[in-house]
Amino acid sequence: MGRWEPDARQRLETAAIELFVEQGFAATTVPEITARAGLTTRTFFRYFADKREVLFGGDQAAAAAQRMLAEAPADVEPLALIVSGLRAVAAERFEGRRDDLRIRRDIVNSDDGLRERDQRKRSVLREEVRKAMVARGVDKVTAALLGETCATLLFVSVEEWLDQDGDRPLADIVLDTLASLRVVLS
Amino acid sequence: MGRWEPDARQRLETAAIELFVEQGFAATTVPEITARAGLTTRTFFRYFADKREVLFGGDQAAAAAQRMLAEAPADVEPLALIVSGLRAVAAERFEGRRDDLRIRRDIVNSDDGLRERDQRKRSVLREEVRKAMVARGVDKVTAALLGETCATLLFVSVEEWLDQDGDRPLADIVLDTLASLRVVLS
Repeated sequence: MGRWEPDARQRLETAAIELFVEQGFAATTVPEITARAGLTTRTFFRYFADKREVLFGGDQAAAAAQRMLAEAPADVEPLALIVSGLRAVAAERFEGRRDDLRIRRDIVNSDDGLRERDQRKRSVLREEVRKAMVARGVDKVTAALLGETCATLLFVSVEEWLDQDGDRPLADIVLDTLASLRVVLS
Repeated sequence: MGRWEPDARQRLETAAIELFVEQGFAATTVPEITARAGLTTRTFFRYFADKREVLFGGDQAAAAAQRMLAEAPADVEPLALIVSGLRAVAAERFEGRRDDLRIRRDIVNSDDGLRERDQRKRSVLREEVRKAMVARGVDKVTAALLGETCATLLFVSVEEWLDQDGDRPLADIVLDTLASLRVVLS
């Protein structure tokens, strides 16, 4: 789609986020977004179902997790698989985007509907991991707990990474969070 | 409110759940609910913001958690506090209601909007526990992990309790889940 509109998706995202910051999420309309991006609303709806999805459409964490788990050798221990998967996602999809993700977090936190949508992201990840673990022969409760642990490690680590002033990579913060979780449960 | 309508809330809940089961959540209207309960829509809206809240309005888990945490002596270890709080909630609010809660779970799982609302219940509980732990002087990451652990233990345990055929009390399943979570993280 759209070879005559190079980077249309990126231009729409940039315009939308600028407007959400300037005037708030609720007050921003799709025509305002497309006007700023110099594109048509028809193009907008080719990429996004609505303005909310601009903030979530690019999120492929659950799909990436599913792929990684499906491809992993059967003898890798489940928690090790989750931790190495999260560290790979951290390095490939998060590192270098901290300022951008801080801005997106502030927008999401400004709106109840966005916060609710954000929770769905979490439950989808939890559910994908759970199903993949059941497919690997893990018992039902353990599979559910692995899904929970994966979501906990990712979301608590990202929050900490966004809050911190230092330069500790997210992939390392995932290990810190795992260590803290073990202390909490000991 | 409504001393001339004894048990109005309970009658509305019973009627609503019967109708959700018989004809689906989406197809059921508030006037149908009130007709079956023999009450007015005015009464309905005194108790519930909308038909969705019939399934969630009675849920006070987060408020109960907050109260329990605020009242606990300062020297009780955080995880022990969470586990004893969950076991108390299990005994007082869940035990004896398994059939009713199974029906409610099926209704929630039948509808995307209800599932999303159900997730919010989770995030509210997580957030209440996190804030209470920060107030008790626990560091930020540990407080977040305690909130996550509380939600994990409750929701995985309830799911297991609703799935099982046996009579193991939910309060004991909470301990089983904690033991399994320790194994997952070891």
